Amino acid sequence: MANMNDVAKRANVSRGTVSNYINNVRIKEASRIKVEEAIKELAYIPDVGAREFKTNKSSNVVFILPTVWNPFFSELTYQLQIKLKEKGMKLILCNSQDDYRAEIEYLEIAQQNKVFGIISISYSDIMPYLTSKIPYVAIERYYNEDIPYVTSDNEGGGKMAVNELIKKGCQKLLHVTRQVDGNNALIARKKGFEEACKEQNADYEIFNPKTSSAAFHEDIAIFLKEAFNKGKQFDGIFCATDRYASYCQDALSDMGIDIPEDVQIIGFDGSQSYATEKLKISTIRQPVEKIAQEAVNLLIAVVNKDKQQNSIVLPVTFLDLKTTKSN
Amino acid sequence: MANMNDVAKRANVSRGTVSNYINNVRIKEASRIKVEEAIKELAYIPDVGAREFKTNKSSNVVFILPTVWNPFFSELTYQLQIKLKEKGMKLILCNSQDDYRAEIEYLEIAQQNKVFGIISISYSDIMPYLTSKIPYVAIERYYNEDIPYVTSDNEGGGKMAVNELIKKGCQKLLHVTRQVDGNNALIARKKGFEEACKEQNADYEIFNPKTSSAAFHEDIAIFLKEAFNKGKQFDGIFCATDRYASYCQDALSDMGIDIPEDVQIIGFDGSQSYATEKLKISTIRQPVEKIAQEAVNLLIAVVNKDKQQNSIVLPVTFLDLKTTKSN
Repeated sequence: MANMNDVAKRANVSRGTVSNYINNVRIKEASRIKVEEAIKELAYIPDVGAREFKTNKSSNVVFILPTVWNPFFSELTYQLQIKLKEKGMKLILCNSQDDYRAEIEYLEIAQQNKVFGIISISYSDIMPYLTSKIPYVAIERYYNEDIPYVTSDNEGGGKMAVNELIKKGCQKLLHVTRQVDGNNALIARKKGFEEACKEQNADYEIFNPKTSSAAFHEDIAIFLKEAFNKGKQFDGIFCATDRYASYCQDALSDMGIDIPEDVQIIGFDGSQSYATEKLKISTIRQPVEKIAQEAVNLLIAVVNKDKQQNSIVLPVTFLDLKTTKSN
Repeated sequence: MANMNDVAKRANVSRGTVSNYINNVRIKEASRIKVEEAIKELAYIPDVGAREFKTNKSSNVVFILPTVWNPFFSELTYQLQIKLKEKGMKLILCNSQDDYRAEIEYLEIAQQNKVFGIISISYSDIMPYLTSKIPYVAIERYYNEDIPYVTSDNEGGGKMAVNELIKKGCQKLLHVTRQVDGNNALIARKKGFEEACKEQNADYEIFNPKTSSAAFHEDIAIFLKEAFNKGKQFDGIFCATDRYASYCQDALSDMGIDIPEDVQIIGFDGSQSYATEKLKISTIRQPVEKIAQEAVNLLIAVVNKDKQQNSIVLPVTFLDLKTTKSN
C-alpha cells in the first residue's frame, strides 16, 4: 500500500508538504493539486490512527446514555451522530443500562483512548468527579456551574401542560411521574406542574412513587383504579413522559373511561419511534435535533476553551393530538 | 501523569513485564500482584491509542445501518454494543440514512482508522466491493458466498404468518410490502408468503408498490379503501414489517373495519420501542439479541480466520397478540 513518501515522490513535493496537506495545514495551490492527483493515482489512504496518535488529537466522541433502545434516546443518538459527522467526528456508543459501574468503565475507556470528549445523559452523581480531565457536556442534567449542560425547558413544559389542560376545560388535575434519583428533568417537570396549578388555583394531586421502571405500568393501573373507585374523578393528567402517558391510556381504557371525552392526557417528549411515525398522544415536544446540535457545539467550545454560556435551556412546544379535546 | 516506566520502577519489575501485563500476555503471579498494586497507587492509565497504534490492533467496530431511529434497529444497536463490550470492543455508530455515498464515507473512515471490522445492514450493492480489505459481516443481506452474513429466517416467517392466519379462519389473504432494491429480507418474506399460499391453496393478493417509505402510509390507505369498495373482502393481512401493520390498522380503523373480528393482521419484527413495551400487533418476532451475538461471533471468527459456516439463519417465532383472534 502506498505511503506518504510515495505520494511525495509522485507529486514531486517534500514529505512535509504531503503531511501538511493531510493535516489540513494550508499549502501552495499548485502543490495541493499535485498532491491530490498523486493521492488519487496511488489510492493512498491516510492513516488517521497514526496521525491522531502523533498529534494527540482524536476525533472520537464518547456518548454515554442509559440505553439507545427508547424513542427519545434513539432519536437523540441519531441526531448526535449526524451532527458529529458534519464536524468530521465519530460517535462511540455506550449504553450504561443505568449502571454507574458501566459508566465508570466507559469513562476509563474514554481516558485510555484519549477521546475528543464525552457527551452524556447520566443520573448518577459520580460523573462530574471523574470527568475533570476530559472535555465533558451533560444533557438533561445540571450538576454544578462548572459542568456545561444542554436541556429542554422542563419546568416550562410542566407549566405549559397545566395551562393547556385548564384551557381545555379540565378541573381536577393529576401528575403522574416517578422518583428517580438524580433525574433533574423529572423533578423540574413536577415543579412546573405544581407551580402552575397553584397559580391557576387548580385542584391537583401528584402520583410520584419510588418504583422501578418495569413495575410502573402496573403501579399506575392500580393507582387509577383505586382513585376512581374512591370517587376522585381526575379529568386532566399530565404525565412526565409519553411512555407513562401510554400506561395511563392503557389503564383508563381497561376501566372503560373515554379519552379525551372523560379524561384528557398530555405526555412529555414527543419523540417518534421512527421519523415518519404519526404521534397520537398529546405531548410537550422536546427539540431533539436542537439539543444534539447544541451539545456538539458546546463540546467543541469546551475543547477550544471558547468563552460562552455554560448552560443552554431550549424551549419546548405543545403538540395538540388525540388525547386532548380540540378547542 | 504516570507512565509505564514509573509503574515498572514502583513494582520493581522490568518495563517488559508491565507491557506484557497491559497487553494481556501472561506474567508470573507475584509480578501480576505487584504490577496491579503499582498501577492502582500511581493511578496509571494505559494509553490504548498508543498500544493499538503500535500493535496495529484496534478494538473499534464500525456499525453501519440505515438509521438507529427505528425500534428494530435501536434494539439491534443496543444489543450489538452490549455484546461487543463483553468482548472488550467498542461500537462506532454510523447512520447511512440509506445513502450509499454516506456508506462509502464510513468505509473510508473505517479504512483510515484501521478498525477491527465492520458490521453492516446495507441495501446498496456497493458494499462488498469496498470491504475486501476489512473484516466484514452483513446482517439481513446475502451478497455472495464469500461475504459472511447473519439473518432471520425471513422466508420461514412469511410461511408461518400464512399458516397462522389460515389456522385462525382467514380465507382471503393479502400481503402488504414495499419494493426496496437490495432488501433481501422483504423479498424472502414475500416468497414465503406466496409459497405457503400456494401450498395451502389459499386465495391471495400482494400489494407491493415501488414507493417511498414516507408515502407508504397513504398508499396503503388508498389501496385498502379501493379494494374493499370493489368488494375484495380480505380477512387476513400479512405485513412485511410491524410498521406497515400499524399503517394497515390505521387505515382499516378509519374505514370502520374491526380488527381482529373482520380482518386479522400479522406483522414482522416484533421489536419493542423500549424494553418494557407491551406489543399489541401480532407478529413474527426476529431474535434480535441472537442476531447481535452471532454477528459479533462471526466477525471475530473472520478476523481470526477461524473456519466456520459463513452464513447463519436464525429461527423466528409467532407472537399471538391483539390483531389476531385467539384460537
